[in-house]
Amino acid sequence: MSEQTLDDDAMRRFPVPDFDDIPEDLQARIAEETERAGFTPNVFSAFAYKPSHFRAFFDYHDALVEDTALDRDEVEMIVVAVSGVNHCYYCNVAHGALLRIYSKNPKLADQLVANYRQADVSERQLVMLDVAVKLTEEPAKVTERDIEDLREVGYSEEAIWDIASVTAFFNLSNRMAMFADMRPNDEFHGMARAKRE
Amino acid sequence: MSEQTLDDDAMRRFPVPDFDDIPEDLQARIAEETERAGFTPNVFSAFAYKPSHFRAFFDYHDALVEDTALDRDEVEMIVVAVSGVNHCYYCNVAHGALLRIYSKNPKLADQLVANYRQADVSERQLVMLDVAVKLTEEPAKVTERDIEDLREVGYSEEAIWDIASVTAFFNLSNRMAMFADMRPNDEFHGMARAKRE
Amino acid sequence: MSEQTLDDDAMRRFPVPDFDDIPEDLQARIAEETERAGFTPNVFSAFAYKPSHFRAFFDYHDALVEDTALDRDEVEMIVVAVSGVNHCYYCNVAHGALLRIYSKNPKLADQLVANYRQADVSERQLVMLDVAVKLTEEPAKVTERDIEDLREVGYSEEAIWDIASVTAFFNLSNRMAMFADMRPNDEFHGMARAKRE
Amino acid sequence: MSEQTLDDDAMRRFPVPDFDDIPEDLQARIAEETERAGFTPNVFSAFAYKPSHFRAFFDYHDALVEDTALDRDEVEMIVVAVSGVNHCYYCNVAHGALLRIYSKNPKLADQLVANYRQADVSERQLVMLDVAVKLTEEPAKVTERDIEDLREVGYSEEAIWDIASVTAFFNLSNRMAMFADMRPNDEFHGMARAKRE
Amino acid sequence: MSEQTLDDDAMRRFPVPDFDDIPEDLQARIAEETERAGFTPNVFSAFAYKPSHFRAFFDYHDALVEDTALDRDEVEMIVVAVSGVNHCYYCNVAHGALLRIYSKNPKLADQLVANYRQADVSERQLVMLDVAVKLTEEPAKVTERDIEDLREVGYSEEAIWDIASVTAFFNLSNRMAMFADMRPNDEFHGMARAKRE
Amino acid sequence: MSEQTLDDDAMRRFPVPDFDDIPEDLQARIAEETERAGFTPNVFSAFAYKPSHFRAFFDYHDALVEDTALDRDEVEMIVVAVSGVNHCYYCNVAHGALLRIYSKNPKLADQLVANYRQADVSERQLVMLDVAVKLTEEPAKVTERDIEDLREVGYSEEAIWDIASVTAFFNLSNRMAMFADMRPNDEFHGMARAKRE
Repeated sequence: MSEQTLDDDAMRRFPVPDFDDIPEDLQARIAEETERAGFTPNVFSAFAYKPSHFRAFFDYHDALVEDTALDRDEVEMIVVAVSGVNHCYYCNVAHGALLRIYSKNPKLADQLVANYRQADVSERQLVMLDVAVKLTEEPAKVTERDIEDLREVGYSEEAIWDIASVTAFFNLSNRMAMFADMRPNDEFHGMARAKRE
Repeated sequence: MSEQTLDDDAMRRFPVPDFDDIPEDLQARIAEETERAGFTPNVFSAFAYKPSHFRAFFDYHDALVEDTALDRDEVEMIVVAVSGVNHCYYCNVAHGALLRIYSKNPKLADQLVANYRQADVSERQLVMLDVAVKLTEEPAKVTERDIEDLREVGYSEEAIWDIASVTAFFNLSNRMAMFADMRPNDEFHGMARAKRE
Repeated sequence: MSEQTLDDDAMRRFPVPDFDDIPEDLQARIAEETERAGFTPNVFSAFAYKPSHFRAFFDYHDALVEDTALDRDEVEMIVVAVSGVNHCYYCNVAHGALLRIYSKNPKLADQLVANYRQADVSERQLVMLDVAVKLTEEPAKVTERDIEDLREVGYSEEAIWDIASVTAFFNLSNRMAMFADMRPNDEFHGMARAKRE
Repeated sequence: MSEQTLDDDAMRRFPVPDFDDIPEDLQARIAEETERAGFTPNVFSAFAYKPSHFRAFFDYHDALVEDTALDRDEVEMIVVAVSGVNHCYYCNVAHGALLRIYSKNPKLADQLVANYRQADVSERQLVMLDVAVKLTEEPAKVTERDIEDLREVGYSEEAIWDIASVTAFFNLSNRMAMFADMRPNDEFHGMARAKRE
Repeated sequence: MSEQTLDDDAMRRFPVPDFDDIPEDLQARIAEETERAGFTPNVFSAFAYKPSHFRAFFDYHDALVEDTALDRDEVEMIVVAVSGVNHCYYCNVAHGALLRIYSKNPKLADQLVANYRQADVSERQLVMLDVAVKLTEEPAKVTERDIEDLREVGYSEEAIWDIASVTAFFNLSNRMAMFADMRPNDEFHGMARAKRE
Repeated sequence: MSEQTLDDDAMRRFPVPDFDDIPEDLQARIAEETERAGFTPNVFSAFAYKPSHFRAFFDYHDALVEDTALDRDEVEMIVVAVSGVNHCYYCNVAHGALLRIYSKNPKLADQLVANYRQADVSERQLVMLDVAVKLTEEPAKVTERDIEDLREVGYSEEAIWDIASVTAFFNLSNRMAMFADMRPNDEFHGMARAKRE
């Protein structure tokens, strides 16, 4: 663990702490994440600035991806469509990479960053993204009709809750990343861009 | 604990579970909250729908109010100003009540729900609310200049992080409350409206 | 009448005149209003700044509430929904109090200030508020279709004219109150908040 | 008076009454206006639909143009700039004609309908229009700074009140004209378009 | 040709060149245009600032009006509706004049500058303008549904392409005219305002 | 030339013609472009639908990149920032690739698609992008002040015209690509993503 470092340029508006100075549970989580990814995603380095928020943020994130009625790639579709609408550089790029991995589609992230209405998604997923983007852009205009639209294309009650939850969480996440000026790791930009069979 | 119940009308778009059916840690947290407030705030009944999200949501919330460089009433000022801009009925009313309590000002919540620019806050708090509302309404337009504005009126680096964190979290919270159509308890509407000396 | 005064803090961007210095017809109207309400609503003190406008403003207002095909509480529902959307502190609070009185519902004003879509109103009133808010936010997009929607839920031709008139007048009123920074009387904030049987 | 008529096509969403059926005070006012203009401006025919509103509307209007600290052409500049921003066909055309008459400038109305920032107005009037348009488009964002800007270019306190009042009134007027689909008389479109020396 | 000049006030943010200094092909085009119109429309004087752009701009414009599946007046309807929404003074006035000529309707341009929804156009043209304005204001929200709407009212595939092309081109043209502060010739303001039989 | 084809999926809302059926000058231009790029960019296949527009579109484009006072990479910076704001999938991806090539920076396009305010550009280029994005989003608000800002950071008069021209042209281009649902070639997505020394 002695070689683990956090990138000073992970964010530009707050100082990134030294790995050796952060609490052990954060060190452990970062080490694990680093091993899995092959590098330390900058969002971990950035949130290490405030350990109590680091724990809360990643616990919420983990709940969203581990206890969900949605497919793993659908979660990332929502994340990228929401981040595209909010114009979040960090999330576009980091979650764009994840989406390319989970969907095995090297173009889907670029589509969703631009405009989910032109993306190669199913009719059902299009309704999901309609609601996620509406909840992002004009939450006060969401009505029972939107929930019914999701039900009609087959999403379960719990999946509908999860769609809202992922959307809501990335409205938090985008704002933290943009406020702190978080920078995606170089690795994310080019990851999983080759076509997979 | 046998008499504890959750209000069926706590939210209108998802079923509120029976108190007896939810995990023990949620029961404990709700019992504690109920004892403190004298009633069960409906956001607890609503989030009990999905225990993993209940835990994540309240842990994040607790971190924001317990480990903060902001004054307790400043946290609620941000919450109410952000919720006013997002048009969130639940948060306007429930956090409006908290703000009346913490600020000892019976009019401040109505002011912030309407328009923070007309509220009786200090010059320094006005800058805080300028940034919180900008991060809510047009996060992509936040620049280094906004951070400097906060620094110039005396907010510490950590306080600036906390201003962003509270703002970001209630952009999550508002969206969950509006999507689920959460309803504030009757008690919140009239709470702490008398003038305090 | 010698004890009648106008609150210096009724508005913050123009001077409030002395009661003794204003024309007699204004004095009479203010005295009458004060007797009815038990205090002088600050909008009277503020408009006394310019007597010709005082007369025109309250005459228009009186026509709207005295010669109308709408129920009295429906008029106030429109006022509060429009003021909520325009973010007018004075009108939210003063007309929120009136709405609590006329509707005998202590929560309705808080709902309409936040988001009429989550308010406890009838289906018919929801259509009325849809049109009032559309005419407020994007008047150029109102079409024949909106008028037909009102007709279909049973509003008479005159009631439809009145819905537009109340909406239009409070688009005037909100702007004057916000421009002059009018402040609602303390009394309005807490008025009629107890449940009525 | 027997030949006076009201144009059936003065508005398209409510019936225009017969001249003979409206109250005498409305008949007198309309006759007077008709004599002055050479034709009956359609806004009179339209508001005759509801006499109590006719009286209130024109009394307010008269107060704004008769008891004002602004120059007569400045009043119409505000009206046309506000109506242009609100996209009101009736007011653009009818008040465009008035502005051409009062300003003796045949191009100013077309400029203000399009974009007051490109109009041939003085620096001082540009500030006036900046505030009028801001109060129209985003009234919640008006602050003390805007009032100071007006003061700095020399507008008196009463003139500042009047700028707000004209702006606010035409936010009412535009909405009534657009909702009722009022149609400007043919005469207004071409009136006063020749250059005056 | 020796008397041909370009108006120095054709635009205000870049210098208008001397007619004698511009390339011969531009001189020829301008001479031809001047002969046709009786004066030199200022857009020619303005674009002469950069000859390569002059050629590209007018070639594109010519393709749009010469090789089109739309009626000539429909092209100008789109231009004026789009320019009205974009608030372009030059295009409102210059193309407003053209529309009055081609449509033989002296009021249509004032209607479309204000609000195409109140204009005297056919049902079919209303759908055309719905799509043109949507593509102008929120291009990301255009979907297959909009294309189908055009098809259903009878526009051919090529006409649909042309509707988009005229709209897109005037989103270019409006921006150049507004950026350079181009000024419509005096002649355009009053042209073709008399009723034609 | 017999092997040249146009991709049927170059756009989804209009048919792509057969290469053999299009005019010779289009064939020549496409062949040349194909040889240079190694593939036929889909915008050529799409615009071949209407040859007169194909010629006008690419002539304007060529003028913008061949006769310019801007650096080649600055042109593409504007294109990508404007396309990001307009949410144009085709232009984000195709011009993102060009920008990576011209700037030799594999991350700049992802930054500008998201938010030019977080991009690694010079202070001077930031002002250029401020104006390009303002001219895209709210062209009516551009004033002399914006032109002065560009002048102050050193852009020549002609460069300022060119900044506006590139911005205006891609407001056309984005709208055509989005309306026709043009699809970027697979090759563009991954092109030039490796770091260059």
